Amino acid sequence: MRLKDMDRPRDVSRAATQARFHVVRRLTEDLAHDLHPEDQTVQSMPDCSPTKWHLAHVSWFFETFILAPHLPGYAVADPRFAFLFNSYYEAAGPRHARFARGLITRPTVEEVAGYRARVTAAMDGLLSRADDGAFERLAPLLEIGINHEQQHQELILMDILNLFAANPLRPAYSPFRAHAARIAAPVSFHEFPGGIFEIGHDGPAFAYDNESPRHAVLLRPYRLASRPVTNGEWLAFMDDGGYRRPELWLADGWARVKAGEYEAPLYWEKDEAGWQAMSLGGMHAPDPAAPVVHVSYFEADAYARWAGRRLPSEAEWELAARGHRVAGNFLESGALRPLAADHGEGLGQLFGDVWEWTESPYVAYPGYRPAPGAIGEYNGKFMSGQMVLRGGSCATPADHARATYRNFFYPHQRWPFAGLRLAEDA
Amino acid sequence: MRLKDMDRPRDVSRAATQARFHVVRRLTEDLAHDLHPEDQTVQSMPDCSPTKWHLAHVSWFFETFILAPHLPGYAVADPRFAFLFNSYYEAAGPRHARFARGLITRPTVEEVAGYRARVTAAMDGLLSRADDGAFERLAPLLEIGINHEQQHQELILMDILNLFAANPLRPAYSPFRAHAARIAAPVSFHEFPGGIFEIGHDGPAFAYDNESPRHAVLLRPYRLASRPVTNGEWLAFMDDGGYRRPELWLADGWARVKAGEYEAPLYWEKDEAGWQAMSLGGMHAPDPAAPVVHVSYFEADAYARWAGRRLPSEAEWELAARGHRVAGNFLESGALRPLAADHGEGLGQLFGDVWEWTESPYVAYPGYRPAPGAIGEYNGKFMSGQMVLRGGSCATPADHARATYRNFFYPHQRWPFAGLRLAEDA
Amino acid sequence: MRLKDMDRPRDVSRAATQARFHVVRRLTEDLAHDLHPEDQTVQSMPDCSPTKWHLAHVSWFFETFILAPHLPGYAVADPRFAFLFNSYYEAAGPRHARFARGLITRPTVEEVAGYRARVTAAMDGLLSRADDGAFERLAPLLEIGINHEQQHQELILMDILNLFAANPLRPAYSPFRAHAARIAAPVSFHEFPGGIFEIGHDGPAFAYDNESPRHAVLLRPYRLASRPVTNGEWLAFMDDGGYRRPELWLADGWARVKAGEYEAPLYWEKDEAGWQAMSLGGMHAPDPAAPVVHVSYFEADAYARWAGRRLPSEAEWELAARGHRVAGNFLESGALRPLAADHGEGLGQLFGDVWEWTESPYVAYPGYRPAPGAIGEYNGKFMSGQMVLRGGSCATPADHARATYRNFFYPHQRWPFAGLRLAEDA
Amino acid sequence: MRLKDMDRPRDVSRAATQARFHVVRRLTEDLAHDLHPEDQTVQSMPDCSPTKWHLAHVSWFFETFILAPHLPGYAVADPRFAFLFNSYYEAAGPRHARFARGLITRPTVEEVAGYRARVTAAMDGLLSRADDGAFERLAPLLEIGINHEQQHQELILMDILNLFAANPLRPAYSPFRAHAARIAAPVSFHEFPGGIFEIGHDGPAFAYDNESPRHAVLLRPYRLASRPVTNGEWLAFMDDGGYRRPELWLADGWARVKAGEYEAPLYWEKDEAGWQAMSLGGMHAPDPAAPVVHVSYFEADAYARWAGRRLPSEAEWELAARGHRVAGNFLESGALRPLAADHGEGLGQLFGDVWEWTESPYVAYPGYRPAPGAIGEYNGKFMSGQMVLRGGSCATPADHARATYRNFFYPHQRWPFAGLRLAEDA
Ligand SMILES: [Fe+3]
Ligand SMILES: [Fe+3]
Ligand SMILES: [Fe+3]
Ligand SMILES: [Fe+3]
Repeated sequence: MRLKDMDRPRDVSRAATQARFHVVRRLTEDLAHDLHPEDQTVQSMPDCSPTKWHLAHVSWFFETFILAPHLPGYAVADPRFAFLFNSYYEAAGPRHARFARGLITRPTVEEVAGYRARVTAAMDGLLSRADDGAFERLAPLLEIGINHEQQHQELILMDILNLFAANPLRPAYSPFRAHAARIAAPVSFHEFPGGIFEIGHDGPAFAYDNESPRHAVLLRPYRLASRPVTNGEWLAFMDDGGYRRPELWLADGWARVKAGEYEAPLYWEKDEAGWQAMSLGGMHAPDPAAPVVHVSYFEADAYARWAGRRLPSEAEWELAARGHRVAGNFLESGALRPLAADHGEGLGQLFGDVWEWTESPYVAYPGYRPAPGAIGEYNGKFMSGQMVLRGGSCATPADHARATYRNFFYPHQRWPFAGLRLAEDA
Repeated sequence: MRLKDMDRPRDVSRAATQARFHVVRRLTEDLAHDLHPEDQTVQSMPDCSPTKWHLAHVSWFFETFILAPHLPGYAVADPRFAFLFNSYYEAAGPRHARFARGLITRPTVEEVAGYRARVTAAMDGLLSRADDGAFERLAPLLEIGINHEQQHQELILMDILNLFAANPLRPAYSPFRAHAARIAAPVSFHEFPGGIFEIGHDGPAFAYDNESPRHAVLLRPYRLASRPVTNGEWLAFMDDGGYRRPELWLADGWARVKAGEYEAPLYWEKDEAGWQAMSLGGMHAPDPAAPVVHVSYFEADAYARWAGRRLPSEAEWELAARGHRVAGNFLESGALRPLAADHGEGLGQLFGDVWEWTESPYVAYPGYRPAPGAIGEYNGKFMSGQMVLRGGSCATPADHARATYRNFFYPHQRWPFAGLRLAEDA
Repeated sequence: MRLKDMDRPRDVSRAATQARFHVVRRLTEDLAHDLHPEDQTVQSMPDCSPTKWHLAHVSWFFETFILAPHLPGYAVADPRFAFLFNSYYEAAGPRHARFARGLITRPTVEEVAGYRARVTAAMDGLLSRADDGAFERLAPLLEIGINHEQQHQELILMDILNLFAANPLRPAYSPFRAHAARIAAPVSFHEFPGGIFEIGHDGPAFAYDNESPRHAVLLRPYRLASRPVTNGEWLAFMDDGGYRRPELWLADGWARVKAGEYEAPLYWEKDEAGWQAMSLGGMHAPDPAAPVVHVSYFEADAYARWAGRRLPSEAEWELAARGHRVAGNFLESGALRPLAADHGEGLGQLFGDVWEWTESPYVAYPGYRPAPGAIGEYNGKFMSGQMVLRGGSCATPADHARATYRNFFYPHQRWPFAGLRLAEDA
Repeated sequence: MRLKDMDRPRDVSRAATQARFHVVRRLTEDLAHDLHPEDQTVQSMPDCSPTKWHLAHVSWFFETFILAPHLPGYAVADPRFAFLFNSYYEAAGPRHARFARGLITRPTVEEVAGYRARVTAAMDGLLSRADDGAFERLAPLLEIGINHEQQHQELILMDILNLFAANPLRPAYSPFRAHAARIAAPVSFHEFPGGIFEIGHDGPAFAYDNESPRHAVLLRPYRLASRPVTNGEWLAFMDDGGYRRPELWLADGWARVKAGEYEAPLYWEKDEAGWQAMSLGGMHAPDPAAPVVHVSYFEADAYARWAGRRLPSEAEWELAARGHRVAGNFLESGALRPLAADHGEGLGQLFGDVWEWTESPYVAYPGYRPAPGAIGEYNGKFMSGQMVLRGGSCATPADHARATYRNFFYPHQRWPFAGLRLAEDA
């Protein structure tokens, strides 16, 4: 995080920022509200973390990067929590092994709630008592802390779905609200010109360091699909042997197919009645009109090859999305699953519903430099082996999405709410 | 379990058996009482199971082997529980993978408590309404169900200790009650004659099928140590390079030493103040006068070789123990850790404190035949690769121990409450 | 190896022993003669070793345990060979990892031949120049060296078969000589009395330390099958669902079945024409009248349970075999595969054809003590987790077999030439 | 391989192409000439292949893609070789598992030589008898076959070094010819302008499909180091804690450091005299003036961060290299190790010595499309998870290098002859 990127917008009042801090803290707690202590404790795979751990970790983040250095006399809640709840910050000291987060039955859910309340109160005190100069200095760190907690909100949902899908009872996280059956919107391809354009973040609003520097890119004319690929289209791919034809696949993806890892999107299961998919609302038949979700980059790439098209680059996506309002089926809609697109004009579902795999490896923008210290580990050290996804999903908080946002996962991972949108050369 | 072994003793009244059923059910629940739902849900390694799973599994056992076949009109609590809570009975249908028992956050602890209450009530109804003939027919299965639940009581304690030892906070399961420091009782070796003797179970009292048939064995004169090896003696072994000298070890054990698996008993950790050992009472320095516990067969065997002695055979142990009263530091003492021996005459601590590794591989007694059906899977199918342990531990229910009891574990396993007693040829 | 076991028989002349040394050395080289350098270098799995390694290792054994300590001024061929060709003797210093023996392309086959010639010549010099007293002192070590090399002769054949079976071309080690088709000899069960008997080695002839001390055992009356189980009988087991019925299997064996590890004897493959089995003579249909070979203990045990019988104990086998001449289809017959039994009276095929799994875990005889030093590692440190096999196989040198001989392998291993003979209580 | 890329240059005579075919075939055989059959058979890790396999595979390539489809009446040498010697062409049928290539002791080295001779002769016949039109049609496939064999020449050397480094004897592949000790050339940074440039292959000369299409890129001004990083500089990095400071590393690289995988370049070993490095000439102290080699992308990236610089992009490298003559320390020099740079002007060692890791993930150029059929699997399906390297090494055939050539390996791999050159923003 370069400090210059953390300048907060002048037109956002201090009160609004403080309020947003509380709203975000509260939302995190709301997400866990209906989960039992049992649900909040277990880690279903090494990529996932227990809800309880997320709840504590985001508090540790505020404690470590704001309270401890900036609140004189602040005593940490428990000096052992740094070991338990540090995720990956080498500069912040040793930490519990990631794969063993699910063994930490203590502190309990209730104790973690106490930890959260203590950190929230201390933050509130710090922010309330700060004079304007001090608040200005804290604001960039506060912004990153808030945004960090929002990222973990999506992770909580991703990880709970993974956990519940591993339970033979397939419990639902929240009630499934049916929608009237819809026909998928017809897909069209919208053309964009080639040329030199600028992408990336610039300006006073918050953005992560990896969205900067804003820089010029050279694009060739291209077309983007009007909406993401749907479950119905994915079923056609499957029916056409999509998972059985090596010529469609990258070699590393095909190796996983042959190892039995991929035969349908994650969470799909076939029974005598056909395919069912586990979601936060439990097991239901995939809606043919809704975007396919929980596919890996390897699957997305194979689909695109089968369809005679390709995935967009992140620059292509960003330029197409730039003018659009950041609105869509986000976490706040309560649907918690991708929904069928409206039959409107232009590009739909750019934001929300599903993260969209791009063909772009996650690397630094030209001139990128991470901040010194632990906070510099936030994004930069992950710049190898992963692919960029754009747009946000049905589990992303609405005000956490933006056109320049770069999400990233390994190409084999499927537990994010990730789908795809097709592109082609114009 | 051969049915003839399940004849209940004629001098035990029906009322006493029914009472015992309730006492055992209650004790299991008491063991879990101070554990949080979080603690009861997690599985710390594939050998272990969550407390909650144990609580449900022993109920499933009564439901499957008694209620369903013998209570007309009985409807199982939830038909999906057979999949979740069957441990290893192939004849009872498919089941959830053992290593994934810790993913089952639902049913919750509370729901499992409801399941237990339902099964207990149904059992109570069945037993209360049975005429004497029916009760007689049920009694052998009832006995095995009660004994099965007692086995899982010890497993609950073994597994919770393993879980808490994996938590960097090292929480205690129960308060640690200090004992006055004692000097270890001096060890002496007691001689027993050679000859032909009978070992194994016979008669009306309950025993598992693997304790039968009673049969003749041919022994040479031998001597047994008056008490198990202590922590103080184990430290001397360690100080003498016990974990660094390959000539003391079986090859399969030494391979584990070289792989870094063994360098002290399980749960021992060295800090600047010396060795500390995690127990159900938390972290404390090992009591030099108390029996060493949580050692593998490989370690026990290496120690015996270092000491110029050997482990006893199970026949030697049983013949020495036969005349002794089954009394000692069992689960009911509440110590939940091995304690220093009294300085008395003769053989001490045969029962309770620590299970004692023998040199005997766990194989069938001559003429052994398991019962037909699922219940026959109880013991027989495990008769390869494991070693016999005798005597019971500080986590064993007192009335679950007897001189003929054959416990068994793989030679590398250390999470049982297992120690050793030395023997030698006379 | 206790030295007293190594006293050589008084009636064997010194000249005969020296001659036998040369015969055995020559036979080892003959076994490798038709193998290409490529064949002699590769290790097909960690349990196996390259032919070249065997050729060198047995020479290192003579060099290390006889030449270096007993031939004044002897300089080892290459001081680095101790690292390369020590198998498992901790007391003889560090050594190359077992699983990496196949990476040692140098020294070449030709260089190893030179090493062998050098060691043979030095041994010849030492033995020839020794006065009778010195020869007497060397004789026990010489015997163990000769026997050791004979063990590796069988291992060479086991390992080459494993290697060639992994080659899609399925090359033959030696020409397949067809035998006239035969009907399997009918099987009968021969009864032996119970009582106290002595087993184990005693007397001046050579035996390994693990065959001693001779000691009393208590047996119950039993019956032994007149011949090993045949391929034809094994096919009936398979046709009856032998590999699909968990009730027939020990739990550890069934886990391997479910993991896809066992579905027929090792080296069997099914094509449209039925089952074919890879042997040292290449791929051929299994002879229904010949003993089944390359089955694990788990499979042998499951077969016996299916057949309503059991495997014999090693004591039962030894007592039955004791009076029989050690004759049969050994390595020297050149068949290099088990052959159909003669239709004679009494127990057949006790020696040769296939090693016979017993129900006896490989543990020490009462009073057993290994020799001090490296040579004591020969047998004793392997006494855990393995099962005893008796009798010798079609790959065993004839004069390496005897009634007291205890071979041992892990219960899952299938690359030995191992089959089974049924037993039952009388 | 798109066919249009395979047009051969008009100014190369048919005779020259045929001659080159024979020269390349001969060179491959020369590389294997001093290796024993043992050396040629073993596979030291799954990434490597036996020399013998390489020798056969490149012949299978000519047989499969040229002789079988284009030589009427051609009968393959052995129909089973397609299974054994197909590397990864899904469209060419099933194949032997990659990790098991070292188990194929048959066909022998001699038989593979026969196979090679047969294929060379058949190719010679086909080419000699083709009329000019037919030759024109074959030429693109012939070019790719020749280039393919050249790639395997480098792989043979990489794989033999890996094998010999795993042998405790550390044999040399070829005699080590010492060079006069030199001071490393001082390093300077040469500036290149920003702007829009074209990179990639175009024109009649041979290039792989992944070098096309030629396309515009947008660059910012940058500087490139005048020579690769040397062993001496790498030692300074190590002395400064390079392998102990997480802030220098990408997270995936640091995980490998912590797992003990990296602590110096591959093949470096520390003894009392300091660092020694295994090379094709055996074990020698690393030359401080020579380029460091056998480092992973993760290490190269960490070094660059330590040095306050970065790795170049592949476009930056190509544009800087474009005007340079393709000359340097290639395979033909016989050094078979990187050598100290000359103290000349400008950029040195762009070609030869070491492949240079770039910061560019290996992805398709805009508009890239692989050829239909098996030959299309040559490059395209590997476009995920790998990084581009440029320039060629001391094991690359001289006429196989060019400025547009894109080599690629996974970022953790170290067995290629890979080093690095620093870059920075201007
Ligand atoms: Fe975080
Ligand atoms: Fe159980
Ligand atoms: Fe050996
Ligand atoms: Fe190739």
